[in-house]
Amino acid sequence: MKKLDGGVTAAKGFKAAGAHAGFRKNDRKDMAMIFSESPCDAAGVFTSNVVKAAPVIWDKKAVSTSKIQAVVVNSGIANACTGDEGLKICKKTCEVAGKTLGISSESVLVGSTGVIGPQIPFNKLEYGINLLSGMLSSNKESASEAANAIITTDTHSKETAYEFNIDGITCHIGAMAKGSGMIHPNMCTMLCYVCSDVAIERNLLQSALSDVVKDTFNMISVDGDMSTNDSLIVLANGAAGNKKISAEGPAFDAFKEALYAVCLELAKMLAGDGEGCTALFETKVNGAATKEDARVLAKSVICSSLTKAAIFGHDANWGRILCALGYSGVSFDPDKVDLYIKSDAGRLLLFTNGSAANYSEEIASKILSEKYVTAEVFMNEGNESATAWGCDLTYDYVKINADYRS
Amino acid sequence: MKKLDGGVTAAKGFKAAGAHAGFRKNDRKDMAMIFSESPCDAAGVFTSNVVKAAPVIWDKKAVSTSKIQAVVVNSGIANACTGDEGLKICKKTCEVAGKTLGISSESVLVGSTGVIGPQIPFNKLEYGINLLSGMLSSNKESASEAANAIITTDTHSKETAYEFNIDGITCHIGAMAKGSGMIHPNMCTMLCYVCSDVAIERNLLQSALSDVVKDTFNMISVDGDMSTNDSLIVLANGAAGNKKISAEGPAFDAFKEALYAVCLELAKMLAGDGEGCTALFETKVNGAATKEDARVLAKSVICSSLTKAAIFGHDANWGRILCALGYSGVSFDPDKVDLYIKSDAGRLLLFTNGSAANYSEEIASKILSEKYVTAEVFMNEGNESATAWGCDLTYDYVKINADYRS
Repeated sequence: MKKLDGGVTAAKGFKAAGAHAGFRKNDRKDMAMIFSESPCDAAGVFTSNVVKAAPVIWDKKAVSTSKIQAVVVNSGIANACTGDEGLKICKKTCEVAGKTLGISSESVLVGSTGVIGPQIPFNKLEYGINLLSGMLSSNKESASEAANAIITTDTHSKETAYEFNIDGITCHIGAMAKGSGMIHPNMCTMLCYVCSDVAIERNLLQSALSDVVKDTFNMISVDGDMSTNDSLIVLANGAAGNKKISAEGPAFDAFKEALYAVCLELAKMLAGDGEGCTALFETKVNGAATKEDARVLAKSVICSSLTKAAIFGHDANWGRILCALGYSGVSFDPDKVDLYIKSDAGRLLLFTNGSAANYSEEIASKILSEKYVTAEVFMNEGNESATAWGCDLTYDYVKINADYRS
Repeated sequence: MKKLDGGVTAAKGFKAAGAHAGFRKNDRKDMAMIFSESPCDAAGVFTSNVVKAAPVIWDKKAVSTSKIQAVVVNSGIANACTGDEGLKICKKTCEVAGKTLGISSESVLVGSTGVIGPQIPFNKLEYGINLLSGMLSSNKESASEAANAIITTDTHSKETAYEFNIDGITCHIGAMAKGSGMIHPNMCTMLCYVCSDVAIERNLLQSALSDVVKDTFNMISVDGDMSTNDSLIVLANGAAGNKKISAEGPAFDAFKEALYAVCLELAKMLAGDGEGCTALFETKVNGAATKEDARVLAKSVICSSLTKAAIFGHDANWGRILCALGYSGVSFDPDKVDLYIKSDAGRLLLFTNGSAANYSEEIASKILSEKYVTAEVFMNEGNESATAWGCDLTYDYVKINADYRS
């Protein structure tokens, strides 16, 4: 597997474009399009929020019933809590995009992210579809423009791509994602589009995705708020020319490994670009009794507001980490827990044998001053482990969210 | 039932004191004592965090096995994650207090709140016990000094008291509480001591308390972090002279009503004094299918970081409230939800029929600028309701928790 410099157009047969269609007041790009030269097998995972945005309801049905050839995404308005009118907008978007691109309207997916509530002005969507369909290109600049067009409070766009091998055939996978606030996926809390030229049957594509998401996007949190719009879509157009993957085995594993690498990288990018944050905060839980225990414990720590504020303050307030493990709902013996912190500046034992280790606050603070900080927890209850990613809680998180709409 | 101006000494036969024993660097009061002239039936609810502070482990056993006559509380150090040494400190505290006060050591409870991790210097506890036992008084100033001695990041102390009637006998109930951060009770996430002169059997006292806590302390949250030290203790010494309550009925109901009033008032005081907050944020959920649904929905809204930041910004970002209802885990039809906001400045419909109501942002912002703001949610799924209390998320919350220990 080889890392590539690229995004959604890294795989053969995919084109993309990003532009300003007018959903935002400033002139930032706010609309993106992905197009595959041939119809794709598609899979998706979506928010488990009861309040689902119109595009989530729409795409959930579409990926399970049709081959997919295009995706139209806008940022600025979420098309969530918009009633029947919101679903009509999805339908009209697919009709116009299908007609403009010369494909069936059933093969178009839609995505939206931004403020919950307002209706999307359809004339802007129509304008954007016309504009973008004339700009589609397979170069990496176009992929970057698309990635740039879907971000909201993100401080940078998020893309990645890999090359991998199936039976001597070179395959590719590229992706873009957005997300910075309202990030607490149980399904993903963001938008993410993954494009691969692998040939794979739809049920296996979905199975790989559903599995990979558990240890990647479902293990991150910025603020504990699960979005109404989360969508993670994978498109596979088969342009690489591999023998279509139709069963589990080495080919399936090779694809899944690449999908995992892409999802992991983007998930960590999302957590590390959490609204207002200054550090990516990772928690590795080892020695848990079950895999589910390990996941729940790791998530509980990265979701703790008090722990996150302490990370911002570079304060080794390990009591908050113990406390968050304790209220996670998982049963364990606190006296058996060992807790370390680590970063590029070193590794330090903070807690062992039921009470504080003898450590230097100065060294601890130095370790916590890095941009990528890890809490390593050893439960000593079993052999399962899991890792979760979040970020620190800062003044800027409050600032961004106290006047997001103004 | 009549509201009184007082605290833990409002009921007959109770004395209190508060003083500076040296757990804090500044000269703030940091140690309190409550004493009853006669042994009390006692009940308690405690944190459900797996990581329990030593005094929680100690008191949990004590309230279920002994009559109680005194409580010794320190602030500044939580005596949590302190291993066997922490439990030894509890034992020694009870021994010294019992000897000093001339009562059995089994009838003493201990409480601690503050930083997790450090061991409590026992010489300071010993000094404080001697000092406080000489200061005990039944006047309301002493109650206030005790209430003042147990606060940490609270901006003010919390006390309340009521007079109520059982079979023509006047009874009293008085209480003090502390809590501002790490507030997400499932048991209470704070310290609260309630003293009544009612005569009531221990099992009924516990039953009343366990019931009342569900709709009071268990319905508040400041930051989603459940503490290691939460303790809510009720002492009843029978000094009022009522016929001892030994079964459910009008006398039990009269006491429970007074206990509810005390717990509700203090719970709301805790939420309204959340770390760094500028407003008490109440969420009333009506028309839920079950009582548990109503509680879960109301809690989900007041725990949403994004909603809390919007309240701080006086921004009627109702989509975040819908979103928080949606990820609560309760199943419902979003199109049936009606959402209002209200405060002393008015009441306004924000969301109905699956989309935004036609409202004035200016009026909405005015309503949200008050110190006590309510979100009223009508689920239209059934007849159950519940109310939860939280606060806004502010720069100061981050500030307080980024350098709590410094």
